[in-house]
Amino acid sequence: MFDVAELGRKIAKEDFKTQEPIMREALLDAQFRLREANFSVVVVIAGVEAAGRGETTNVLLEWMDARRVETHAIDAPTEEQREKPRFYRFWKRLPPTGKVGIFLGSWYTRPITRHAMGQMEESAFEKKLTQIKAFERMLAHENVVLVKLWLHISKKTQRKRIEKMAQDPERAWRLSDKDLAYSERYDDFRRVADRALRRTSTDVAPWKVIEGTDRRYRHMQAAQIILDAIEDRLGNPPAKEPPSSGLPEPQAINIIRALNLGQRLEPEQYREQLNAEQARLGWLSRRLVEQKRSAVLVFEGSDAAGKGGAIRRITRALDARYYQVMSVAAPTDEERARPYLWRFWRHLPRHGHVAIFDRSWYGRVLVERLEGFCSQLDWQRAYSEINDFEEQLTEAGVIVVKFWLTISADEQLRRFKDREQTGFKRHKITEEDWRNRDKFGAYEAAACDMIAQTSTEIARWHLIEAEQKHFARVKVLRTLCDRLEAQLGEAKVPQAGDKSAFEKKKGRKKDKKDKKKA
Amino acid sequence: MFDVAELGRKIAKEDFKTQEPIMREALLDAQFRLREANFSVVVVIAGVEAAGRGETTNVLLEWMDARRVETHAIDAPTEEQREKPRFYRFWKRLPPTGKVGIFLGSWYTRPITRHAMGQMEESAFEKKLTQIKAFERMLAHENVVLVKLWLHISKKTQRKRIEKMAQDPERAWRLSDKDLAYSERYDDFRRVADRALRRTSTDVAPWKVIEGTDRRYRHMQAAQIILDAIEDRLGNPPAKEPPSSGLPEPQAINIIRALNLGQRLEPEQYREQLNAEQARLGWLSRRLVEQKRSAVLVFEGSDAAGKGGAIRRITRALDARYYQVMSVAAPTDEERARPYLWRFWRHLPRHGHVAIFDRSWYGRVLVERLEGFCSQLDWQRAYSEINDFEEQLTEAGVIVVKFWLTISADEQLRRFKDREQTGFKRHKITEEDWRNRDKFGAYEAAACDMIAQTSTEIARWHLIEAEQKHFARVKVLRTLCDRLEAQLGEAKVPQAGDKSAFEKKKGRKKDKKDKKKA
Repeated sequence: MFDVAELGRKIAKEDFKTQEPIMREALLDAQFRLREANFSVVVVIAGVEAAGRGETTNVLLEWMDARRVETHAIDAPTEEQREKPRFYRFWKRLPPTGKVGIFLGSWYTRPITRHAMGQMEESAFEKKLTQIKAFERMLAHENVVLVKLWLHISKKTQRKRIEKMAQDPERAWRLSDKDLAYSERYDDFRRVADRALRRTSTDVAPWKVIEGTDRRYRHMQAAQIILDAIEDRLGNPPAKEPPSSGLPEPQAINIIRALNLGQRLEPEQYREQLNAEQARLGWLSRRLVEQKRSAVLVFEGSDAAGKGGAIRRITRALDARYYQVMSVAAPTDEERARPYLWRFWRHLPRHGHVAIFDRSWYGRVLVERLEGFCSQLDWQRAYSEINDFEEQLTEAGVIVVKFWLTISADEQLRRFKDREQTGFKRHKITEEDWRNRDKFGAYEAAACDMIAQTSTEIARWHLIEAEQKHFARVKVLRTLCDRLEAQLGEAKVPQAGDKSAFEKKKGRKKDKKDKKKA
Repeated sequence: MFDVAELGRKIAKEDFKTQEPIMREALLDAQFRLREANFSVVVVIAGVEAAGRGETTNVLLEWMDARRVETHAIDAPTEEQREKPRFYRFWKRLPPTGKVGIFLGSWYTRPITRHAMGQMEESAFEKKLTQIKAFERMLAHENVVLVKLWLHISKKTQRKRIEKMAQDPERAWRLSDKDLAYSERYDDFRRVADRALRRTSTDVAPWKVIEGTDRRYRHMQAAQIILDAIEDRLGNPPAKEPPSSGLPEPQAINIIRALNLGQRLEPEQYREQLNAEQARLGWLSRRLVEQKRSAVLVFEGSDAAGKGGAIRRITRALDARYYQVMSVAAPTDEERARPYLWRFWRHLPRHGHVAIFDRSWYGRVLVERLEGFCSQLDWQRAYSEINDFEEQLTEAGVIVVKFWLTISADEQLRRFKDREQTGFKRHKITEEDWRNRDKFGAYEAAACDMIAQTSTEIARWHLIEAEQKHFARVKVLRTLCDRLEAQLGEAKVPQAGDKSAFEKKKGRKKDKKDKKKA
């Protein structure tokens, strides 16, 4: 891919002088019109060492209205970022609609560098590229225009530049040992980059290789490509997909209807088992802290299925400092200005923490699908986007546990009426809830599709028979504990009479003191 | 303050059983009405070791709708937080209107602990308390209802609890050596806390001391106080202040008019001086990285005074990875739901970075004052709030440099007309700009007030004669460099022929190799 970028293309100083003001005006104009547009622009500036990425970025920022551009130099992840999935740093920095985000250092940097330096196997590298492709396709669907620039220079040019830089007191400070190591492996980088570019140059996110030798040519090309991308999208907005319509047919036999809703627990059984499971959960939640893991719990189910009650039985066993319950309400305007999953990424838990979602990203394939809040394309692609998301969570060591709570239509009706009559609960029932009841069957069918598509090996759906609340709560707790235990090791709930860790510590201290005395 | 909290108050089990459902309903109901309200609730749960803060927080969360509560256990600051002013961690976590934020560990934790442990001088402690008072007063003005709970137990009770905890295998893991050290200094903590509470118990943020011995009494008291605070505010919303009205009188003689606007630079002088200052700035910006400092630049001035042009001359000398230009546009809804300064706190720079504000928090005392976008009270209190803010910045090592760019009314008119005629600049002029021209004198008078109130020793205003752009740009750059130099040490711009750091490094490496060989 790089031979075409070693042709010695140049722009003469005079020509550049003529072109520069025209380009600046065109860029400012495009940025101005972008302000009100419904998309954002993500520019990735990549390339080999010393190809002039920083220099060109500086020029672009000078030409554009810097106030409408967010520049991100992605260095090593911070402490907090290391506790989150790999893409967290990039998600966090996605620009809102109407703005341009320039990424100097991107999701390509680490995979390419590590593979080229022999620190990452080919299979792992290929997997990263596949994830990147999925990520970029999702961005493209979510109103992000992707511009990926690869600045290229030949081996000879690179060597010359680095030597010159090393001798220039103004710039030598920028050279690190790492840079030199990279440049010594020019051929490896070239080979790996070639493959990365081939694999990830897609219709929605094509790579543009720019010959980097001539400074003026490089700046002008980069600006032109960005300008074209913005203009193109402004001039050819994607056809608006019609909202999703047509409710899914309720099915007589499905995985939800196959559940035995007759299961119950007697009051005494309930108390006993609830206590036992809560003790287990309390113990496991401490392991989560010790082992620097985190958990994401998802609760879905029809209205009045008992999600809130089940969640409260969980939180009772947890320490308030280590959990957060999120309920999915209308997105804020900052959230609406970014891809759909952004608002969930921002609430991912830190190590030791449990994030509990009372309704979740599955809203897209449930209520949004049924109510036509998104297009058919949107909810259809959501399945694989969600699977990718959850895969990234589990890869980062997050334990994902998903619950679907099922009740019958009759039981729902009973609970609605009960809510209306109990002052305590009257806020929980609205006009909308009554309207939604008409779609009970369609909702169930959508849930079956969801389970079929997203109950994966890494994050399966646990179906909970919720007709009787006691039974449901204990089953949720027990399932959760089982899942945590599988990841964190067996729960050893301390028994009265056990020597506590604290006493053991005291014991050790005493031993030490005694030794000292002796 | 604590004697009244050692009276042995209790709630009997039976009574608690009766009261609990009533309290829960009342809390849920209050939270429901809070959703649509224009204020947020910040609950600080503080107290001595083993007084039951965690336990009571858990109960509160169980009683309330946890989805409308954000709980923050403020532990040691993260890497990123350590690079920001002390209050950053708390600002970042302020709940939006309609929600409750519970702070377990707050702005009181460190000052009280450190002073009690003898790690902080009395004078420093007093200063922190003064800052806290200002912070809380500001919050109260900005629609935050503050509830500060101090859970108290006697020395004897504390000793008993800790001993019991140490023997309980279920809970002993929570005890750290630090906890034990704290409890051994009960009297010191009590004395220091007493003073902190006395000093910071104000009309807008009173402390409530709760007797913590009886669990049921403690829970119920905490819930009742929170409930009362919400109900009180819902029932008695503060009188709406009328918008600011009446433009300040233009003054014939003022600090801005005293400037000599006739100062100019000839083209040659300009080029030469610009280059020299930019080289200096480039060098200084690297010192910023090396010394782990950061800078915040503020640009204010009338329309068309040349803020953008001056900023571009600065950014040209900087590395795109280390600066960000922010322009103050309409706040997002997440920003509107929080105190005024929140949207600036979130853009504070990390170490090595420069944050450039094209218009800033001074909008409140300029455009918002003149246009009546806020009340008279709002802009009047803004002066001291801003001074506090900037003091915190400088205390955290941030270099704050503020510029006011001045042009005459005639020059502004000339530039407006020029903008209308130049395609390049036509986006920069709007109807509103023409309307604002009528208020030129009033704007200037407001700026004089601003300068008088906020040109402080730690962050003075630099007045720039901007009638000629060349002169203004060089003066801005030179002033900036001088200010940076005063903080970072003299700029030693490398000269051609200097041995570069890189060559020196290479030299050292060679020496090492030679040694090895030998």
